[in-house]
Amino acid sequence: MKIGILGSGMVGESIGTRLVQLGHQVRMGSRTDNNERAAAWVRKNGTTASQGTFRDTAKFGEILFNCTAGLGSLDALRQAEEADLNGKILIDISNPLDFSKGMPPTLTVCNTDSLGEQIQQAFPRLMVVKTLNTVNCVVMVNPAAVGKGDHDMFVCGNDTGAKGKVTNILKDWFGWKRVIDLGDITNARGTEMWLPLWIRLMVSEGTPMFNLKIVK
Amino acid sequence: MKIGILGSGMVGESIGTRLVQLGHQVRMGSRTDNNERAAAWVRKNGTTASQGTFRDTAKFGEILFNCTAGLGSLDALRQAEEADLNGKILIDISNPLDFSKGMPPTLTVCNTDSLGEQIQQAFPRLMVVKTLNTVNCVVMVNPAAVGKGDHDMFVCGNDTGAKGKVTNILKDWFGWKRVIDLGDITNARGTEMWLPLWIRLMVSEGTPMFNLKIVK
Repeated sequence: MKIGILGSGMVGESIGTRLVQLGHQVRMGSRTDNNERAAAWVRKNGTTASQGTFRDTAKFGEILFNCTAGLGSLDALRQAEEADLNGKILIDISNPLDFSKGMPPTLTVCNTDSLGEQIQQAFPRLMVVKTLNTVNCVVMVNPAAVGKGDHDMFVCGNDTGAKGKVTNILKDWFGWKRVIDLGDITNARGTEMWLPLWIRLMVSEGTPMFNLKIVK
Repeated sequence: MKIGILGSGMVGESIGTRLVQLGHQVRMGSRTDNNERAAAWVRKNGTTASQGTFRDTAKFGEILFNCTAGLGSLDALRQAEEADLNGKILIDISNPLDFSKGMPPTLTVCNTDSLGEQIQQAFPRLMVVKTLNTVNCVVMVNPAAVGKGDHDMFVCGNDTGAKGKVTNILKDWFGWKRVIDLGDITNARGTEMWLPLWIRLMVSEGTPMFNLKIVK
């Protein structure tokens, strides 16, 4: 499958590398078509890896991953042609974190709205599925690295079919055992608002290699 | 021990009843000294249970539990004599939930501040320890009711000694196996911001009888 990764940071690298390993054709998108980090990633990942602008990448991908920093997500998507977004699934991993005032970061949107909702509202014909934003990028593509994979991932979004496809991707491609469907895209508020606690836990636990398990 | 419970809702009842069972003298405080729910609770719980105003209750308790609805917490504490708060531990279970605009509720404060911090700031000589606000009131005093107690509770607050005492209360009185110290009271942001996800999970899981476990 042709997959577009928006963003060339650690999350984009981690997701992109796993997708190449799985045999997909993966394009990593950035503001420019000669981004250094994306170029280095392409060199490491062989002929099925490529790089381009956000616009090229949105055109290329049959399915898209939003791995940009939350502050830049809407801008990155606005660089795509709308026709290249309409009808596609966007797996939205971004978090609206603002580090500009130091640690701990705050959220640029929360409580009565979320970045997932803002993206869905800005691009109504894109099928936004929020997921993976609750864990570190190593855990995203290798949940077994933490507690033998015995922990939980969430999905939310307005399109049931898209959520089903993304749930299969999480399970079949990345190895998630349990994926909880929280409901529509407004549930992105809950998963994005998990970040402040996640960040504090990273400090108190001394590692980003953890996740939550819902115990009943 | 003499314990003051601020609030006569489900949380106050649940905590108060458990404390009476443990042999403590427990006073349940409300706006008035003849609150119906508090009176019913006293009738059920025998001679070591009593009721009073918020002011009476703060005076009575050697240790205090804030079980008021978040919207009323600061007002309830302002009804106490400051001398009856200074130097005492307040176990703050409240969440700043606003149900006035329907479901799901929003938080009245979050992201750059929290109710736990607001209480600490308003009463600087009260030792506020935020805890238990991340679970249903049945689970608070009986963690074994969920997954044999194999899940996690958080504490945060500025006074290390107070956090140690509260951690012992959680373990010895209520049966919590693992209590994670998140740090100072600013960490109340993280645990209060867990509520939007908690509420959605309550819907998707079909029960409030769950909690999170941090898996490493």
